[in-house]
Amino acid sequence: MKKPIFYHAGCSVCVSAEHDIIDLIGKNNVEVVNIGEDRNRIEEAEKAGVKSVPAMVTTTGNVLHINHGASMAEVKG
Amino acid sequence: MKKPIFYHAGCSVCVSAEHDIIDLIGKNNVEVVNIGEDRNRIEEAEKAGVKSVPAMVTTTGNVLHINHGASMAEVKG
Repeated sequence: MKKPIFYHAGCSVCVSAEHDIIDLIGKNNVEVVNIGEDRNRIEEAEKAGVKSVPAMVTTTGNVLHINHGASMAEVKG
Repeated sequence: MKKPIFYHAGCSVCVSAEHDIIDLIGKNNVEVVNIGEDRNRIEEAEKAGVKSVPAMVTTTGNVLHINHGASMAEVKG
């Protein structure tokens, strides 16, 4: 089954939100991607509409920007 | 059991996020509060740290601001 994807970049805001999201929806029900490390997935995140991290892309393609850790420009450095 | 609370104000950004959150965590696992209508709960939301809606307050007290529909000042009018 397709899962929502939680994109983050390892920042403190990201890690805190990641814990909350995993508590809420369960570890096995979300794919967690650190685009600070998996940099080849930055383009995919941007194409999905992610403007900042942390963000969750739902299975229907909606983007939920959660709090604000870093912009994509900051992630790309 | 204590549930996370999703605060919103009926705006289009709010309604979209509400659908996504309910899809993700299940209707019975979150309390949804429309502070545009239940205005006596605005103070409770502010005390919890909600700065804008839609926002989710987790059972551990963390606030997840999701996208941006309206500031609390706009909700209060």
